[in-house]
Amino acid sequence: MANMFPLSSDGQDPANLCDINEPLIDHSEGQLFLNEAFKIIIEEVLCKGTDVKQKVCEWKGPEDLALLLDLELRAEGEPQQRLLQRVKDVAKYSIKTSHPRFFNQLFAGVDYHALAGRFLSEALNTNLFTYEVAPVFVLMETEVLRSLRQLVGWTEGDGIFCPGGSTSNMFAMNLARYRLFPEVKSQGLWAVPRLTIFTSAESHYSVKKGAAFLGIGTDNIIVVKVDEGGRIIPEDLDEKIKLTKSQGAVPLLVSCTSGTTVRGAFDPLDRIADVCEKHNVWMHVDAAWGGSVLFSEQHRHLMKGVARANSVAWNPHKMLMAGLQCSALLLQDTTNLLKKCHSANATYLFQQDKFYDVNLDVGDKTVQCSRKVDCLKLWLMWKAVGSIGLAERVDKAFNLVRHLVEQMKKREGFHLLWEPEFLNVCFWFIPPSMRGKEGNADYQDRLANVAPVIKERMIKQGTMMVGYQPLGDKVNFFRMIVLSTLVSKEDMDFSLDEIERLGNDL
Amino acid sequence: MANMFPLSSDGQDPANLCDINEPLIDHSEGQLFLNEAFKIIIEEVLCKGTDVKQKVCEWKGPEDLALLLDLELRAEGEPQQRLLQRVKDVAKYSIKTSHPRFFNQLFAGVDYHALAGRFLSEALNTNLFTYEVAPVFVLMETEVLRSLRQLVGWTEGDGIFCPGGSTSNMFAMNLARYRLFPEVKSQGLWAVPRLTIFTSAESHYSVKKGAAFLGIGTDNIIVVKVDEGGRIIPEDLDEKIKLTKSQGAVPLLVSCTSGTTVRGAFDPLDRIADVCEKHNVWMHVDAAWGGSVLFSEQHRHLMKGVARANSVAWNPHKMLMAGLQCSALLLQDTTNLLKKCHSANATYLFQQDKFYDVNLDVGDKTVQCSRKVDCLKLWLMWKAVGSIGLAERVDKAFNLVRHLVEQMKKREGFHLLWEPEFLNVCFWFIPPSMRGKEGNADYQDRLANVAPVIKERMIKQGTMMVGYQPLGDKVNFFRMIVLSTLVSKEDMDFSLDEIERLGNDL
Repeated sequence: MANMFPLSSDGQDPANLCDINEPLIDHSEGQLFLNEAFKIIIEEVLCKGTDVKQKVCEWKGPEDLALLLDLELRAEGEPQQRLLQRVKDVAKYSIKTSHPRFFNQLFAGVDYHALAGRFLSEALNTNLFTYEVAPVFVLMETEVLRSLRQLVGWTEGDGIFCPGGSTSNMFAMNLARYRLFPEVKSQGLWAVPRLTIFTSAESHYSVKKGAAFLGIGTDNIIVVKVDEGGRIIPEDLDEKIKLTKSQGAVPLLVSCTSGTTVRGAFDPLDRIADVCEKHNVWMHVDAAWGGSVLFSEQHRHLMKGVARANSVAWNPHKMLMAGLQCSALLLQDTTNLLKKCHSANATYLFQQDKFYDVNLDVGDKTVQCSRKVDCLKLWLMWKAVGSIGLAERVDKAFNLVRHLVEQMKKREGFHLLWEPEFLNVCFWFIPPSMRGKEGNADYQDRLANVAPVIKERMIKQGTMMVGYQPLGDKVNFFRMIVLSTLVSKEDMDFSLDEIERLGNDL
Repeated sequence: MANMFPLSSDGQDPANLCDINEPLIDHSEGQLFLNEAFKIIIEEVLCKGTDVKQKVCEWKGPEDLALLLDLELRAEGEPQQRLLQRVKDVAKYSIKTSHPRFFNQLFAGVDYHALAGRFLSEALNTNLFTYEVAPVFVLMETEVLRSLRQLVGWTEGDGIFCPGGSTSNMFAMNLARYRLFPEVKSQGLWAVPRLTIFTSAESHYSVKKGAAFLGIGTDNIIVVKVDEGGRIIPEDLDEKIKLTKSQGAVPLLVSCTSGTTVRGAFDPLDRIADVCEKHNVWMHVDAAWGGSVLFSEQHRHLMKGVARANSVAWNPHKMLMAGLQCSALLLQDTTNLLKKCHSANATYLFQQDKFYDVNLDVGDKTVQCSRKVDCLKLWLMWKAVGSIGLAERVDKAFNLVRHLVEQMKKREGFHLLWEPEFLNVCFWFIPPSMRGKEGNADYQDRLANVAPVIKERMIKQGTMMVGYQPLGDKVNFFRMIVLSTLVSKEDMDFSLDEIERLGNDL
C-alpha cells in the first residue's frame, strides 16, 4: 500500500495541495485528449477493424499481452502521449467484433447511428430512474418499448430495458412468481409450495442461472423434450406439467426460446401457448437472439403465437446491431405488475410530492438502482433506417445463410448437422484423411479434435473467428453465426476456403 | 402494424431488394455521421453542458417534450441532417449531469480520460465473458480488481464488475447463501432453514430489492438500530442476531454501509466485524458511495476494519467520476466461490478444450451472459491521474463540503440537520416568514413543503439541481451532494444564494 501514496517531493501531504478555488479538471485539455482518442478509435477500430485486409484479432497469450499492456496502476499519472499510445494498444490487441469475418458470437458488426447514440449516452452520463434526471430517456424508452411491443402484437403492456437477456429472463421468472404468490416478496419462498420452471435442454443457460439466483433451484427446472430440430414438443410439456402438479409442485413458468443459442431453433409458440393457457402457467419467450425476425414480413412466421405470451425478452444488440447492451423485456401485463413486484419506494429518489406525474419515475420497475440508458442507440438507428431498413438486415442475413449452406453442400469436407432454421449454421469439417472412415473406432475422437485445432489456427493467424461446441451426442462442431450487415457473399465463400486451408492437413 | 412494412413503390417485397453481394452499411458515410455527432457532443454536452453560464436543465413537461422530440418510430428512415438535429435535441433537453451546479445525485461531473475509455469500449463492442473475445479486458479487469482490493487491504481475493451497486449487493447475498448452503443452488430455498439479513434502516434500498429477488423476502431483513449519526449500533446487531437464532432462523449476512445514501454515514466496520466473527455471519460492506475514501490517507479511517469484511461493493462511477456504470464487487474469498456459486458451464461458450488456460474465461463468475466492459474507463483514468490524483479528488470534495458547511452556518436561514461525516450535506432552508416560529402548529407541514417548491423553481429556471427527501421524523430536507472535481468554492456560495433567492418569499 505504502507506495500508492508517496508524499510529494517537498514532504507535504498531497491532501493539503487541494485548491478548492479551481476545478481540478481542465476542460480544454480534456477535450483535446478526447479528440485525439476519437481519431484513434476511428482509425484503429472503425477503419482497420472493419477492413477484410486486416486481421480480426492479433493473438497474444496472457503473459505476453500483460507485458505489452503494462496494466499496473500506480501512484503517479502519465503524460497524454503515453495515454494515447495506451488507447492505441487497447484497440490493437482487442478483438475486432465489427470485422466482416467475425462469426463467433450472437453479436457482430457496427451501426454508426447506434454508435453515435452510444457516445451521446456516455457523454450525457445519466441514470434512467427518474424523469427529473432523464426526461428525454424516460419518454424515449417508453416509445421504443411501445414500438417493440407493437411488433410482438400488443397494443398495450409494459416493459423495461435490462442489462442483458439473462436479467430479462430472470425478471420474467420473478414476475411470474409474484403474480401467483405476491407474498414471496415479503415472506420468501418458505411461504409457498415448490415451484417448477419448464424449458428445453437447448434453451439458454440463464434459465439455470436465474432459477439458482432466485432461490428456486436448478433441480426445479423441468427439461422438456425437443424434436429433431431442437424445438420443444408441446405434448411432452403438457405431460411434464401434469406430472409436476401430481407431485405437489406448482408449475410457475414455461421458458420458450425463439432462436436457441447453438442451433437457432424456434419453439412452436402457438402450440405451447395452448398448453400454458390450459394450465394457467406464465409463458415467457426468450427471443434474445431470434426476436428481430419480427421485423421481417418474410420470417416473422417463426414466432407465430408470440402475442399469446406473457413476456418476451429481446436483445436488439444481437442481430439488429444496436450495440452491447440493448435488451428489452416486454410484457403483456397492464396491471403494473413490474413495479409492484420490484418496487422498494425509496423516499430519497421516488418522492411522491414532486411537481410532475411521478409515474414517469420508472426506476422502481427494476431491481437495479443505477440503470444505463440503452434506448437511445436503438432509437437513433431505427430513426435512421426505419423499420424497413431493419427488416432488410434480417432478410439479408437469411439470404447470406442460404448462400453459405448452398456452397457448403457443394464442398466435400463440410457436413451440415441440421438445415438451419435461422442464422446458426452448424457443421463439421471433415479433413480429407478422415473422409469415408466414419466406421473407424477413433473417428468420433478425431472429429471432436478438428474444430478446436482449426479454431486455434484461425485465431493465431487472425483470419477469421467462428465458434464451436458439442451438443448432446454430437462431438465438437462449428457454429457459424451470420448476422452482420457488413458481410457479403465473398465473406461466406472465404470462410469455407479458410476452414479448408486450416484443416486440410488434419 | 400494416404501416410498418409498406411495399416499395414498384410493389416489390422489400426482402427481395436485399443484395448479398455488398455490405448494407457504407463505412465512409457512417463515419462522417459519427464525426458530426461527435462535434455536437463536444459542443452541446461537454462545452455548454459544463459552463456555469448555461443552464443545468432545460425543463419541459412530458407532453411538450414528447412533441418536441417526435419520438415515434416509422417505416422509413430519415436524412442525415435530420438525424443530426435529433442528436442536438437529445443533448439540449437532457440534464447536464457534468454541470458544476448539478448536486442532485451520487454521481456528477466528467472525466475526459474515463470518457475516452467509454467511447473506446463502445466502439470495440465486445463482451467480457471469454479471453477469446476480450483478451485485453479480461487481464485489465483482473488488474483493476487487484488494485481495488489492495486499497481494501487484501493481497488476495476475487471480484467482478457488476451492472450497478444493487447487483453487487445481491451477488454478496447469493455468495453468503452458497457458502452456508451450497444445496440452495440446486434445491432452492425450500431445502434450508429461514435465512435472515441484517442492515440498518438507512442502508440502500437494494438490500430490500435483493432479499425479495433472491426469494429470501423483505420480512427476513432485520433492521438494526442506528446511533444519532445514522451508524449501526453493534450491540444491537449482536442482540438481533442472537434473537433470530433463538427463533430458529439462520443469520446469513450483515450488510454494512460505508456512506449511506441520504446522510453519508459510515457504519463502524471494525466493531461490526467483531460481531460477525463471533456469529460466523458473512460481513458485506456496501461502499458503493463511500468506498473511494480508501484512496485518501486523510479519510480512509472512515472505513477502518473493511479488510475484515467478506465482500465490498464499490462504485467508482460515483465519486471517482469513472462514468455510469462502474461497480466492483470485491471478495476476500480465494476458494473460487464466485464461480462455483454462479456457474452454469455452458459448453458453447466455456469450452474446456480451448488452447489457452480456460480460467481466463471469467464469464461464468456472474449471472449475466452479455457483460459490458466497465474496467477500461476506470483503468485509463487511473493511469492518467494516478492514485495520487484520485486521492486529490476525494480530499477536494471533503474540503468543499467543509467550506459549504461553514458558509451555511453563517447564514440565518440554513439549518444543518447533522454535521456531515461525508459529502452529503443535509439541511432545511427556513424562509424568513417561518423563522422563530418552530412552535406553531403548522410549522412542520409548512417546512415539508419548502424543499419541493424550491426544487420545482430551480428545475424550471434551470439554475441548479439538488435533491430532497424526508427521513424518519425529519420532514423534507435538502441533501446536497458535493463530489465533482469541476466544482469550486464559488459554486458552493452560489448554491446558498440561489436557495435564498428561490425560497425567500415562501
